Amino acid sequence: MGKIEETIKEIGPIDEKLIEEAQERLDRLTKPKGSLGRLEELAKKVVGITGEKDPSLKNKVIFTMAGDHGVVEEGVSVFPQEVTPQMVDNFIKGGAGINILARHIGARVVVVDMGVASELKIKSEKLKIKKIGYGTKNMAKESAMTREEAIKSIEAGIEIFEEEYKKGIDILGLGDMGIGNTTPSSAITTVITGLPAEEVTGRGTGINDGIFENKIKVIKRAIKLNRPNPKDPIDVLAKVGGFEIGGLAGSFLAAAAHKVPVVTDGFIVTTGALIAFELEPRVKDYIFASHSSVEVGHRAILEKMGLRPLLDLDMRLGEGTGACLGISLIEAGVKILTEMATFESAEVSKSLEEK
Amino acid sequence: MGKIEETIKEIGPIDEKLIEEAQERLDRLTKPKGSLGRLEELAKKVVGITGEKDPSLKNKVIFTMAGDHGVVEEGVSVFPQEVTPQMVDNFIKGGAGINILARHIGARVVVVDMGVASELKIKSEKLKIKKIGYGTKNMAKESAMTREEAIKSIEAGIEIFEEEYKKGIDILGLGDMGIGNTTPSSAITTVITGLPAEEVTGRGTGINDGIFENKIKVIKRAIKLNRPNPKDPIDVLAKVGGFEIGGLAGSFLAAAAHKVPVVTDGFIVTTGALIAFELEPRVKDYIFASHSSVEVGHRAILEKMGLRPLLDLDMRLGEGTGACLGISLIEAGVKILTEMATFESAEVSKSLEEK
Repeated sequence: MGKIEETIKEIGPIDEKLIEEAQERLDRLTKPKGSLGRLEELAKKVVGITGEKDPSLKNKVIFTMAGDHGVVEEGVSVFPQEVTPQMVDNFIKGGAGINILARHIGARVVVVDMGVASELKIKSEKLKIKKIGYGTKNMAKESAMTREEAIKSIEAGIEIFEEEYKKGIDILGLGDMGIGNTTPSSAITTVITGLPAEEVTGRGTGINDGIFENKIKVIKRAIKLNRPNPKDPIDVLAKVGGFEIGGLAGSFLAAAAHKVPVVTDGFIVTTGALIAFELEPRVKDYIFASHSSVEVGHRAILEKMGLRPLLDLDMRLGEGTGACLGISLIEAGVKILTEMATFESAEVSKSLEEK
Repeated sequence: MGKIEETIKEIGPIDEKLIEEAQERLDRLTKPKGSLGRLEELAKKVVGITGEKDPSLKNKVIFTMAGDHGVVEEGVSVFPQEVTPQMVDNFIKGGAGINILARHIGARVVVVDMGVASELKIKSEKLKIKKIGYGTKNMAKESAMTREEAIKSIEAGIEIFEEEYKKGIDILGLGDMGIGNTTPSSAITTVITGLPAEEVTGRGTGINDGIFENKIKVIKRAIKLNRPNPKDPIDVLAKVGGFEIGGLAGSFLAAAAHKVPVVTDGFIVTTGALIAFELEPRVKDYIFASHSSVEVGHRAILEKMGLRPLLDLDMRLGEGTGACLGISLIEAGVKILTEMATFESAEVSKSLEEK
């Protein structure tokens, strides 16, 4: 049995009984019943996932996974491929959006080279090298990767989680970096959801009408050429996916297997969640949807998985920036559950209807 | 000239030129243009309000203002009036929802007795006594307060701000506590917006159909009896308002006069903002709308003032809980502006379109 199957086997049901108990506890806190809305839902879900009555989200970790994409040859992005390693440098030096927001919420960032097209010069303990290849192949001309590479990328995502879990992870946020990676994300989404490419393709980092039309054509060509099997998520990942998307899928599975709440970011990360969901639908119960991206394909995936995003702030950066904001709300919900006074302890009178 | 007029006179325009400069700076940061969406808007607005290129929101303060309402005699709430002072105790002891969320974002809470119906037993430097009266009168039978009391309540809100400003306030969140206070909030909203009472009245802390029907009748009766002049916000506050609502209005005005960003909470706080807005529309430029409450009247006010809420989490607690979550997002936006690396400093290549 391979690492993926072993991990999936460990994903059990969440603890419904503890969720009920958490609801009863929330109803004893000094506030009208249900008046903290979704914060209360978040707290209950964390209890159900972790199996802990008094969870604490002290160790907050973000994995930002980077990879390159051969399909950029087709002119699907306005940024040159050299930006991927340059941004990895920026992540390590602490100047990128994800670094600022991770510091804001007190999270640690782990950067992963899943398949950047060049050798990274920077060395740092914050950087993990799990290179499956030097960028994928151009999916408009051939399969993006082999089936073996797709499996290896998911396994690498599992390994990263297991290595970092030893240092402590109470909640995981996932992020991505990779010039051109909305193109494979749209391709995967259209194959798995069955929606037309036009309905799940957006403008990525900000492309004009001409590039946008071309991007849709490239996606359609790649699918026609490679014929990914929608019932086989590893086949889809191999033919029209990306190394970082595979890594993300693996980390979703590993987090669920270890009963760790895991938080989506934007379109690319959520595509990784979709691959994980197709491999094992139960992973969904361990996932929180942080925000709704400007990228249209994002919403299609969240709907398919039945996840309701917490935020809608017109964001489309990726890197894990949305995940950070979501984690802060989830932590707020958990603190409500675990730190608020009850009607009894604070000697506050209850609603007349309950007397 | 009275304190209110003096304060209004100090409310100047926000700095549009600095906002433009902040936009240029945001566009030089290592991210696709506009990709942090509303976080970028928040940062620009803080720059425009404070007049500082590098604002810092270190001193975060929440005012939670408490008051009682004679109209509870009409059976408009399911909680007994004794809950108001009990919750003030809870705020001071640190066990209420607002305490947990304020700690989560690193904010200081100042509790204000604007008009609790009993003498508070607890003594604390966190508690300010600005009692205008022992609860308002029953507006279904007479004017809730005199015009002089309405003015005094707004002035008290200004004074609280000025006293606390000396200790440092970089951003202010406002909150409320007062059994029955959604009833005056709906009354004020229907008078000022001209919308029918049915469209701006909600279920407060959770009332059933019978109490809800009665609540609407009480609001209509109070308006018919007192005939508040919609063009005179102080008249509206006096006849169908509350002491804490007046205090909140005063703090909105004072924050704007001191160029301090000020953040709404739910329905009651936003009703205070509406009174301030009717006194001086320019106050709106200094206000951030944190969230959209379950209370229907809340949205009506935000629409009238042209404010778009940041969050929609089905919350309806008040106390300043929504304001806390909003402040954390605003601070995230400011940190993006002031802490992120630029394309130049991080040596990251720009978009091909910009070359």
